[in-house]
Amino acid sequence: MTLHGVEALCFDVFGTVVDWRSGVAREAEAALAPRGIGLDWPAFADDWRARYQPAMEEVRAGRRPFVKLDVLHRENLEATLADFGVTGLPEAVLADLNLGWHRLDPWPDAAAGLARLRRSFILAPLSNGNVRLMVDLARRGGLPWDAILGAEVARAYKPSPEAYLRSAELLDLPPSACVMVAAHNGDLAAARAVGFRTAFVPRPLEHGPGQTSDLEPAEAWDVVARDFGELAERLGC
Amino acid sequence: MTLHGVEALCFDVFGTVVDWRSGVAREAEAALAPRGIGLDWPAFADDWRARYQPAMEEVRAGRRPFVKLDVLHRENLEATLADFGVTGLPEAVLADLNLGWHRLDPWPDAAAGLARLRRSFILAPLSNGNVRLMVDLARRGGLPWDAILGAEVARAYKPSPEAYLRSAELLDLPPSACVMVAAHNGDLAAARAVGFRTAFVPRPLEHGPGQTSDLEPAEAWDVVARDFGELAERLGC
Repeated sequence: MTLHGVEALCFDVFGTVVDWRSGVAREAEAALAPRGIGLDWPAFADDWRARYQPAMEEVRAGRRPFVKLDVLHRENLEATLADFGVTGLPEAVLADLNLGWHRLDPWPDAAAGLARLRRSFILAPLSNGNVRLMVDLARRGGLPWDAILGAEVARAYKPSPEAYLRSAELLDLPPSACVMVAAHNGDLAAARAVGFRTAFVPRPLEHGPGQTSDLEPAEAWDVVARDFGELAERLGC
Repeated sequence: MTLHGVEALCFDVFGTVVDWRSGVAREAEAALAPRGIGLDWPAFADDWRARYQPAMEEVRAGRRPFVKLDVLHRENLEATLADFGVTGLPEAVLADLNLGWHRLDPWPDAAAGLARLRRSFILAPLSNGNVRLMVDLARRGGLPWDAILGAEVARAYKPSPEAYLRSAELLDLPPSACVMVAAHNGDLAAARAVGFRTAFVPRPLEHGPGQTSDLEPAEAWDVVARDFGELAERLGC
C-alpha cells in the first residue's frame, strides 16, 4: 500500500514511539528508592500519567493559558506524590524526577523504523510534549526527526484541531499530505477529522500487561501496522 | 576556549550555513535560461536578496501581520523579475523558482562541522527562513538539526528580540546557555542584546568576490572561527 501524495509522517510520541510507563517507573524508583521510599513504581507511573488528560483539558477548554507539558507534569508529580504519601522531597529531586519524562526509551523497533521511513518522508513528532522534551528523547533514542512540531509550537494540545492543522501548516502541506501515526484511536480520529491520513500502530504493552484499550483499530485507518518496520514496508520504503 | 554553561548552538542559515548567492543564481538560470532569458544571474540573486530586509521590516514594524518567508520571497521575486524586464512567466515556473531557496547548498565545511558540534550541543537553525524551508535545506545538505527554531515558530523576524528569546524558551534555556552563530555582526549584536553568547564565522564570499561587509568581527564576540570545523575546535568538541 502506498498513500498517494503523502509527504510527511507525524508521530504521536508517548506510547507510540517511547515506552513511558516502564521509563517513568524506572525514573521514579531511581529518584526515590535511595531515599528509603518503596512504592509500586508502575502504579506510581500510572497515577502520574492519569493526571495528564485532565491537566491538558484546562488548557484546551480555555480555562488556563497554554503552558508547556513540563509545567503540567510538575504539577501532576506533586499531586501524585501527595497521593502516595510522599512528602518533603528537596526541590532538586522534584525537578530531576520531572525530567524523567525526557529520559524515556523508544520501543525497540522505533529508531530503525524511523530511519527507514525518513528516506521517503519528512518525519516530525506531533506530540503534546514540549520541544525540549522531544529534543531530549530524540538525542537519547536516536530518533531522526526533521523538525519538532506539535503542541508547543501550535500552542494547542491534541486533540484540538489547531495542534494538527498548525503542524501541517509549518510543513507547508495540506493535511491530506500528512499521515498521523499513533497507537491511540482517539488521536487518529481527531487527525482524520481535520483531513490527515492515519496510521495505527498498536502498542499493546503501553499500559502494562493488563492493557484493555487501543488493542485494535476502532475505525478503518488508512494503514495498520504492528510496528514501525512494518509501517515502512506498508508505505513502500 | 569553552563557554561555561552553554547547551545549545543556534545558527543563522542564509550566508552562515548555506551559500544563497550562487545557489539562487544557479536556480534562476535553470528556470529562465531554457525560456531564452539571459541575465546577469548573480546580479539577479543580489536584487532578489536586497528586497529581503525591507520586506521583513514591514512585519517587524507591525505594518503587516507575520507571514512566512516563502511568501515574502515570492512577492520579492515578482518585483525582481519586473526590474529585470521579465514578464509573462507561467505560475508553475514562478512557484518552482521561488522554491529555489529550498535547494541551496551548504558551505563545504558546514555539514561536517555541525556533525562534530552536535556531539556536545543541541543544534538548531535560528533563521528568518520558515520551517519547511529549513527542513528542505537540512535534508538536501545533511544538516543534523535537533529542532527547527527561528522566525516562523517565534512569529517574529530577526533582529526582533522575540525571535531569539522565543527560540531559547522553546529549548527551556536561558539566553546565556545559547550561542548565536552567524556570519553577520548585526545578527550577533541583536542576540547579545538579549543575553545570548555569540560566535562569528565570517563568510567572505557570501556576497561574491567584491564583498565589503562582515569581513571582520565588529565587537569582541565570545568566539571567532574561520569555519565550522574551527568552531568545533574552539568549543572543545
